[in-house]
Amino acid sequence: MTGLADLARIGLRWDPSGQAGLHGPLLALAGDCDRAFQHLASRWGASEEAYAMTLPASSLGGHLRSFPHQVTFAMALDPAEANLAGFADGTVLDRSGAVALTRTAPVTAVLTPAACYHVYAAHHGEQLTAATYVTTRNTCFRRESAYEPLRRQWTFTMREIVCLATADETASFLAQARAAVDQLAGLIDLPIDWAPATDPFFRPDRHPGHLLQRIQPVKHEAAYGGSPALASANLHHDHFGSAYAITRDGAPATTACLAFGVERWLHALVDRHGPDPDGWPDLVAAARQVVTR
Amino acid sequence: MTGLADLARIGLRWDPSGQAGLHGPLLALAGDCDRAFQHLASRWGASEEAYAMTLPASSLGGHLRSFPHQVTFAMALDPAEANLAGFADGTVLDRSGAVALTRTAPVTAVLTPAACYHVYAAHHGEQLTAATYVTTRNTCFRRESAYEPLRRQWTFTMREIVCLATADETASFLAQARAAVDQLAGLIDLPIDWAPATDPFFRPDRHPGHLLQRIQPVKHEAAYGGSPALASANLHHDHFGSAYAITRDGAPATTACLAFGVERWLHALVDRHGPDPDGWPDLVAAARQVVTR
Repeated sequence: MTGLADLARIGLRWDPSGQAGLHGPLLALAGDCDRAFQHLASRWGASEEAYAMTLPASSLGGHLRSFPHQVTFAMALDPAEANLAGFADGTVLDRSGAVALTRTAPVTAVLTPAACYHVYAAHHGEQLTAATYVTTRNTCFRRESAYEPLRRQWTFTMREIVCLATADETASFLAQARAAVDQLAGLIDLPIDWAPATDPFFRPDRHPGHLLQRIQPVKHEAAYGGSPALASANLHHDHFGSAYAITRDGAPATTACLAFGVERWLHALVDRHGPDPDGWPDLVAAARQVVTR
Repeated sequence: MTGLADLARIGLRWDPSGQAGLHGPLLALAGDCDRAFQHLASRWGASEEAYAMTLPASSLGGHLRSFPHQVTFAMALDPAEANLAGFADGTVLDRSGAVALTRTAPVTAVLTPAACYHVYAAHHGEQLTAATYVTTRNTCFRRESAYEPLRRQWTFTMREIVCLATADETASFLAQARAAVDQLAGLIDLPIDWAPATDPFFRPDRHPGHLLQRIQPVKHEAAYGGSPALASANLHHDHFGSAYAITRDGAPATTACLAFGVERWLHALVDRHGPDPDGWPDLVAAARQVVTR
C-alpha cells in the first residue's frame, strides 16, 4: 500500500479539496499514461479534439436530475456595478472562509462531468458515412462524499476514445477496446479485471436508468485489486445520436466510449511497481505493442 | 483580418459562452506554441509543475475584492439528501435554460484566475538558497463583458514561467524574459510591442493598487497590432514571498512571472501568416534558436 508521504516524494501535492498537483516523476508518468492512451486511440484513426471546460446546463437536464450530488457548476456574481460594489465593499469572505456572495448571475454552465459529452454536441447534425473515432481529454469535476489522493478526486483527468457508428461497429469497437486495455495492462504487469457496473445515480433504487443498467449492462469497468475503475467501456445505444441528430447510414448513430481515469493509473502503477521510478514500466512502448483488430 | 469562418475551417469550434474547442491545424499549432514556451522556460532550468483547477477562496480575499467582475466560482448543491431530492424532483432548469438551484453549499473554491497563483501557495514556507524557476500551464477563467474567439475568452490557456528569487535576480529574469519573447517573435515574423499596463481592477479610479501601478509599472504587456496582450511580464515585489513565507537568503522572496495567453498567439499567428497551415512558422524550431543570458 502506497501512502501519501511516498506519493509526495515522487511529485504529488495533495489539495484536500480533492485535487492533485503533480510534478517530477508522477507528472512525467501522467504524461506517459496519456501518450499511451493516445497511441491506442490512433489504432482506430481517432482524431484528437480539445473542448471547453464547461457544458451548457440547458443540454444536461437529464444528467443534472440523475447526478445532482456529483455536479459542479460555474458561477459568477451578477455583473451589475452596484452588486459588484456591494461585494467588494463587504467582507468578501465570511468567518469560515467561504465567499460572502452578493447576488449571483443565473447559472448556465456545468463544469465538465465526462470528457465525451462535448464530442456529441460538437458533432450535432452530422451525417456520418463511416464509423467515426474521436479522442479527447478534459478535466472532469465530480463531487464525492470523501476524496482519496489519485483514486477519488473532485477534479481529475479523463482521456476518452469515442466511437460514433452503427450498432455493429460500436459493438466491435468496445470488444477491441477492452481487449486493447487487457493487452496494455498485461504488458505493464498490472492485473486488471473487467466487471459490469452501473453509473452512480442519485437514489439508485428509485432511478429507472439504474434498473435498466442492471438488467442490460451498458457499462463495464476495469479495476486493479479492488480499486476504483481505471477504465470504463460504455455503450450509449442511440441516446446521443438521437439527442444530437447524428446519423450513420440514415439512422441515429450508436455511440460508445472507452474512458481512462489518468490519476487512478498513477496510483495503480505505483502500488504495483513501487515508488521508485526506475521500477516503472514504459507505457508508451507497451502501447505500441498492443495489437487491435 | 481573419473571420470566424476561416478559423472554423482550420479547427476552431467557438462556444458562445466564451470558450474555444480546437482540433486539426489550430490544435496542433496550440501544442507547438506551448512547446515553444516550454522550451524558453528550459533556458532558466524551470521545472514543470501541474496544479489543481481551483484555488481556496480563503487565500484570495484581496483578489476577490480587486477583481469581483472577473471571478468564476466553483459551486455545488448542498449535499443533504432532502436538498438534492428537492432539486432532482423539481424542474432542474428554468424556462431560460438556467439551473433551478435549490440550496447551495458554501462557496470555498475559485476557478484559477492566473496559473502562477498555485506556485506561490505550493512553495509556502520554503527557504530558497538559489533563484528558483517553475513553469506551469493551467486553464484560467475570466468573466468579461463580451467575448471574441481566441482573443478574449471566458476560459483560456495560460503558460507561465515563474521566478522566485532576490530583487536583483527577478529584475534580471524579467529583462531576459522580455528579450526572449522579442527574439521569438522576430524569428517567426510576428511584430510585437511592449508597453506598461495595469491589471484590470474593478473601479480602477478608486483602487489604490491601480494608482500604484500607474506610478510604478509592475506589468508590461506585449501586443501584436493593437491586439489584447499575447504575453505579460509581471513583477510582484515581495507580495507573494511575504504572504506565503517564502524566503531567499533570509528575506522574503521577490517573485516575477512571464505569462503567455496561448489562444491569443493562435489568433495573431493566423492573422499574420494566413489561415493556410503551410504558411505557418515552426515555433519550436524558433524557440530553440532564442538565446538567453
